[in-house]
Amino acid sequence: MDQKEIVLGIDIGGTSTKYGFVDKNGNLLAEGEMLTEAHRPSDEFFGRLHIEAENLFSSRQESLKLIGIGLGAPNGNYYKGTIEQPPNLSWKYVDVVATLRSWYSIPIALTNDANAAALGEMLFGAAKGMKDFIVITLGTGLGSGIVANGELIYGHDGFAGEIGHTIVDPNGRQCGCGRRGCLETYASASGIRRTVEELLKKPTPPSELRQINFEQVTSKRIFEAAQRGDALALEAFDITGRYLGLKLADSIAYTSPEAIILFGGLAAAGDYIFSPTKKYMEEYLFNIFKNKVKLLPSSLPKGNAAILGAAALMWKQLLKL
Amino acid sequence: MDQKEIVLGIDIGGTSTKYGFVDKNGNLLAEGEMLTEAHRPSDEFFGRLHIEAENLFSSRQESLKLIGIGLGAPNGNYYKGTIEQPPNLSWKYVDVVATLRSWYSIPIALTNDANAAALGEMLFGAAKGMKDFIVITLGTGLGSGIVANGELIYGHDGFAGEIGHTIVDPNGRQCGCGRRGCLETYASASGIRRTVEELLKKPTPPSELRQINFEQVTSKRIFEAAQRGDALALEAFDITGRYLGLKLADSIAYTSPEAIILFGGLAAAGDYIFSPTKKYMEEYLFNIFKNKVKLLPSSLPKGNAAILGAAALMWKQLLKL
Repeated sequence: MDQKEIVLGIDIGGTSTKYGFVDKNGNLLAEGEMLTEAHRPSDEFFGRLHIEAENLFSSRQESLKLIGIGLGAPNGNYYKGTIEQPPNLSWKYVDVVATLRSWYSIPIALTNDANAAALGEMLFGAAKGMKDFIVITLGTGLGSGIVANGELIYGHDGFAGEIGHTIVDPNGRQCGCGRRGCLETYASASGIRRTVEELLKKPTPPSELRQINFEQVTSKRIFEAAQRGDALALEAFDITGRYLGLKLADSIAYTSPEAIILFGGLAAAGDYIFSPTKKYMEEYLFNIFKNKVKLLPSSLPKGNAAILGAAALMWKQLLKL
Repeated sequence: MDQKEIVLGIDIGGTSTKYGFVDKNGNLLAEGEMLTEAHRPSDEFFGRLHIEAENLFSSRQESLKLIGIGLGAPNGNYYKGTIEQPPNLSWKYVDVVATLRSWYSIPIALTNDANAAALGEMLFGAAKGMKDFIVITLGTGLGSGIVANGELIYGHDGFAGEIGHTIVDPNGRQCGCGRRGCLETYASASGIRRTVEELLKKPTPPSELRQINFEQVTSKRIFEAAQRGDALALEAFDITGRYLGLKLADSIAYTSPEAIILFGGLAAAGDYIFSPTKKYMEEYLFNIFKNKVKLLPSSLPKGNAAILGAAALMWKQLLKL
């Protein structure tokens, strides 16, 4: 019987880690999830991950051949195969590839989660066939993966593509990175929440969000209010789109992409975020780029996108795409 | 006798056009210059250029073999081989490669002047051996060429690398492109002149630039004043470096280059522009990039840099670098 070649895709998150087996067409054949428990040593985590992946592999009926492993992780470094100073994990420095080498002698590659998302879109999603595009992940923060000339831009040190930490206003909002005015303090799930917080301090407009405790004001709650026509929620989306559109206009001046793909929790707000972002992006765009660049939603299945992205990193390498 | 292979490098400027024969090591064997006269039809210009280049070629004693032509021109498009809506030329649209095809059946390639400068630095200058770097040309405007993964980023439409038109402040200075607050309205020869104009409106600091007609205040004159310790001129360089440093910090977040190379008239001010730019760039940098990125001057011979850059575009293609 012919063996089906598969790649193990692993997405390491602050709370939980997802993993699964993905074939070269982007079919997810089996998947699992486990707690990351990053307060415990990283060796323990990878030991558990190895056992879980082996169990998942054995549980399959068909004849599979594991030919590579791809990982997405916060601050994952492609060149070194390491995780360094990850923002949401208490590990300081983990040599991920070396650790996995104790069990696997197949190719292993690692990058950060936004880069993995970009490769996922390129191989299996909205950027199929594109050579120049940018993926923006709008989660708690703002991550990005930039593809130019058909290649992900890793940069000299492996950490390229930090659009969330380009500066909107050097005197602006305090960012977790220690500086002020980073794009992710405005355009992200936490950014829109801060915008609502500022709007709530003013006497108008009226809003259902004034009736609840601010603790309960999540980006999802803001979206729901906007759907009901809430003026303040709509204004918050407009402001978020303005900052994002302004900086995406800069992004286009850098790499002149065919498309920018928005991904992640805040992107799920659909037109409420796409429409103002597109409007301001075009308004702030240098003439030669106007009305050329598509603003697209991700087309990867929502729950599996991160696994598919991690697997795509390895498939791109194996298929020499 | 062995023939020496050479490339014809052509730099089309608003006022004059320089051209020369360049070998694969970046030696300029012969050169010429002619007026562009862009108020006359472009066909006339290329006709003259062809005759001048042929004459220069015939004038050489050694046995040369012309194997390619590279051109740098304002708004030169690499993919299409065209010049489109060039800012300082009255031609609207010129199919440069098709025009030259009337006389030459060798490879011909065209890009914009800043991209050509970047390739010149990569093959023959300060970026030799680098795979990730950015060249910023500080002339009347601000041009840029971005190299990542060893390849120039042309983008989907061939117009990538417009860092001069990223936005410092959407309510800022009026730019020639019709928008407000573009980086080149601050960081360029004309930008520093505008900064001085603003500073002169204030009663302090004292300055020798207050004694002359503003018409005579050129970036060179500001540099000379700074060399004599003029407080206002020094403040103008500090402000220019602050805006440039702020946006270079953004640039690094995009492509994480090994070096940024400053080139062109304003870069000739040396430490007066490098020192504040470096200071603010580091100040505004995202932590993971701090103290990693070199800020370097061009190392191409000043008068020939543009010809060498244009020739490098073709040599890179011919040598498959």
